[in-house]
Amino acid sequence: MIILTLNCGSSSAKYQVFDWDKREAICVGLVERIGEDVSHIENESKDKEVYDAQEYFPTHKEAVEFILKIITDETYGCIQSRDDIKAVGHRIVHGGETFTKSVVVTDAVLKDIEDNIPLAPLHNPGHLMGIKATMDVLPKVPNVTVMDTAWHQTMPEKAFRYAVPKQWYTDHKVRKYGFHGTSFLYTTKRAAALLGKDPKDVNLIIAHVGNGASMCAVKNGVCYDTTMGLTPLDGLVMGSRSGTLDPAVIRYMAHKESMTVDEVDTALNKKSGLLGVTGKYIDRRDVLKGALEGDKDCILANDMECYRIKKYIGSFVAALGRVDAVIFTAGVGEMARHVRKGALEGLEVMGIKMDERRNELSFTQRAETIISADDSPTKIFVIPTDEELVMAEDTVALLNGNYDVHTNFEY
Amino acid sequence: MIILTLNCGSSSAKYQVFDWDKREAICVGLVERIGEDVSHIENESKDKEVYDAQEYFPTHKEAVEFILKIITDETYGCIQSRDDIKAVGHRIVHGGETFTKSVVVTDAVLKDIEDNIPLAPLHNPGHLMGIKATMDVLPKVPNVTVMDTAWHQTMPEKAFRYAVPKQWYTDHKVRKYGFHGTSFLYTTKRAAALLGKDPKDVNLIIAHVGNGASMCAVKNGVCYDTTMGLTPLDGLVMGSRSGTLDPAVIRYMAHKESMTVDEVDTALNKKSGLLGVTGKYIDRRDVLKGALEGDKDCILANDMECYRIKKYIGSFVAALGRVDAVIFTAGVGEMARHVRKGALEGLEVMGIKMDERRNELSFTQRAETIISADDSPTKIFVIPTDEELVMAEDTVALLNGNYDVHTNFEY
Ligand SMILES: Nc1ncnc2c1ncn2[C@@H]1O[C@H](COP(=O)(O)OP(=O)(O)O)[C@@H](O)[C@H]1O
Ligand SMILES: Nc1ncnc2c1ncn2[C@@H]1O[C@H](COP(=O)(O)OP(=O)(O)O)[C@@H](O)[C@H]1O
Repeated sequence: MIILTLNCGSSSAKYQVFDWDKREAICVGLVERIGEDVSHIENESKDKEVYDAQEYFPTHKEAVEFILKIITDETYGCIQSRDDIKAVGHRIVHGGETFTKSVVVTDAVLKDIEDNIPLAPLHNPGHLMGIKATMDVLPKVPNVTVMDTAWHQTMPEKAFRYAVPKQWYTDHKVRKYGFHGTSFLYTTKRAAALLGKDPKDVNLIIAHVGNGASMCAVKNGVCYDTTMGLTPLDGLVMGSRSGTLDPAVIRYMAHKESMTVDEVDTALNKKSGLLGVTGKYIDRRDVLKGALEGDKDCILANDMECYRIKKYIGSFVAALGRVDAVIFTAGVGEMARHVRKGALEGLEVMGIKMDERRNELSFTQRAETIISADDSPTKIFVIPTDEELVMAEDTVALLNGNYDVHTNFEY
Repeated sequence: MIILTLNCGSSSAKYQVFDWDKREAICVGLVERIGEDVSHIENESKDKEVYDAQEYFPTHKEAVEFILKIITDETYGCIQSRDDIKAVGHRIVHGGETFTKSVVVTDAVLKDIEDNIPLAPLHNPGHLMGIKATMDVLPKVPNVTVMDTAWHQTMPEKAFRYAVPKQWYTDHKVRKYGFHGTSFLYTTKRAAALLGKDPKDVNLIIAHVGNGASMCAVKNGVCYDTTMGLTPLDGLVMGSRSGTLDPAVIRYMAHKESMTVDEVDTALNKKSGLLGVTGKYIDRRDVLKGALEGDKDCILANDMECYRIKKYIGSFVAALGRVDAVIFTAGVGEMARHVRKGALEGLEVMGIKMDERRNELSFTQRAETIISADDSPTKIFVIPTDEELVMAEDTVALLNGNYDVHTNFEY
């Protein structure tokens, strides 16, 4: 069975083609600059030449049309015909409180995604364009949506509510939603397998650290708390996002530099984090290089990133009471050994003991590794994440009618 | 030696008179509604009748003048003559980065406090009025200022910096300052005594939970991290303040309800916290009563307050690596057993084990008690705070020329 996964932004689309009988991604691709004068597509099918070219995609529809053309192309493609595609799985960043799991797209679902646009004005419109384009181009193929926020809907109210006027929640849905849910679901299932435990019994702390970064406390296999909030701005120090800070900073800076609240918000999302502290770098490799060369801002930025992760690990240990494993995933989590080291040092008092050598050896992004010491009560794993696999899994399960809470199913 | 301590707000003044030879507060008083049509004063001297009356104080000067009159009054007072007063200690909420310790007031000090007004627009102007009034009324008596923020100036940069554009810090001093420093200093010294350790060697987590509430991580006797930030808004769930939340909530609510950033800020400071969640209560006694009667909002508010404290305990254990004791202080910390219980339950994994019965027995605000189990690696103390005593101590030490870093001195 062939499944296509699509992750559409307002001007971009990432996609993968899965041969589900083999559980294998047979093609990976990326379209950029949809709607601009020159668009760009990069397509890599298994054992085939890479297709990398400039094209013109005025809307998502032309982009999806071209994706179908290239993946069925004899030289660059991976499947015979577009009729081979049995379903399309779409990634949705913000499902609000409406979605607690993946669903087959219906008119009602489209309406719900639209209703949640105020919560994710930068993301949901692009997702909708992607789904509608797919429905136009592949009218007979079912579509499934996989929401980043669905995973987090098991949080207890004490974890997801803010201490703000109650009617901000009842009237305007102001609460913690959480993101990176698909990654947390995947790594939770893998961690349970590595621990040899039923997913229902695992307590975990997962650090998904990429450009965006968030952490999740997992209790009995499901989400109990997370570091991102109403939006992906809160929590950890990220590439260009500030993470947590005194909310009063916004008013203070709005007055100090005569900025609008939107301008301050943009600065916190785009000019803060590692970029803000170093003044120049987003990528941890650059920050590390700078730090090793003695650049004080780089040393500080790295220290802040590690310290913030460490403190959230502590807070989640307190929240969970018992933790089977701490997991690192995503670009930085899988590859940046110095960040893991800085975050894990000194946590022995809570039963978390890293093995320095094992940590140093885990950086390929290609293997699941254990980096805790043998006598560490809490295990520490590095697990490469695979959000597209979850999208394909959910899509297949919904198609086959055996979709269920993730703790209840195995493939 | 007689010392007067003054804690002036923009329209109020709390004061105490100390007989320093006996280390004893011999008078406690409060002036309210300075500048309004009818002001109010309450004065209670040791073994004397309470004076409680409406008066008229157009400015702080008349208020201080009247305080001197009443404390030297034969029926209501505690000292013979205003000449007995050897120094006045003033509380200052925000000393910015300028003040790392208490100082004798000079013109330069007044200027520095004034320069820090933008950081504490609601507090520092009142403090300045109080000092100037005292200088007018008692021109020959030295004044000392004790800053809430001074204690926190030992924080490492990774703890006090935010991941925002660097120039927000260099140009506008945007960083974490911390508050309740005088209380943290006092409880640190008491905890060291209770532990039988040199203050230089203690690692502590202190929860100062009153109407305002913040926590402090103490490493080797000095501040390492804290939960309040640029202002006292951040961190714990408070009576009417939100504590931490996704900073993006401000922009979202500004748009949703067409509020200015100042209006959102005011809502977060005055209509949030327990008041926001319950819709009606600030006082924990009311919240507890409501919760016991089954009011869902009260149950949630209480759960949120406890859960937030618990998570910060965890984050500070991670930050410190080793913790000798957890300390509860201020109104709620000293008396609200259910809040302590909710915050401490389930922390055994990090060596913090409460004794339920001991916890239940500690609620008088009159004794230092230990509420941890005998086999708890980390001790848990309830320590009634005494900020005025620290103000008097610092004032005397500065007067005597033996003031020093607090870890170096004993009285
Ligand atoms: N070898 C490496 N060492 C350290 N950091 C790395 C390495 N490779 C990638 N990274 C970090 O991973 C980040 C990207 O992670 P990724 O999970 O792909 O991000 P996202 O999906 O959020 O865009 C880069 O910004 C970089 O900082
Ligand atoms: N017996 C009690 N049980 C529970 N909470 C109490 C009790 N007494 C006082 N409190 C709480 O203490 C708070 C005041 O604490 P305090 O330290 O005096 O506050 P402030 O920050 O104003 O100095 C009250 O709002 C109330 O919630």
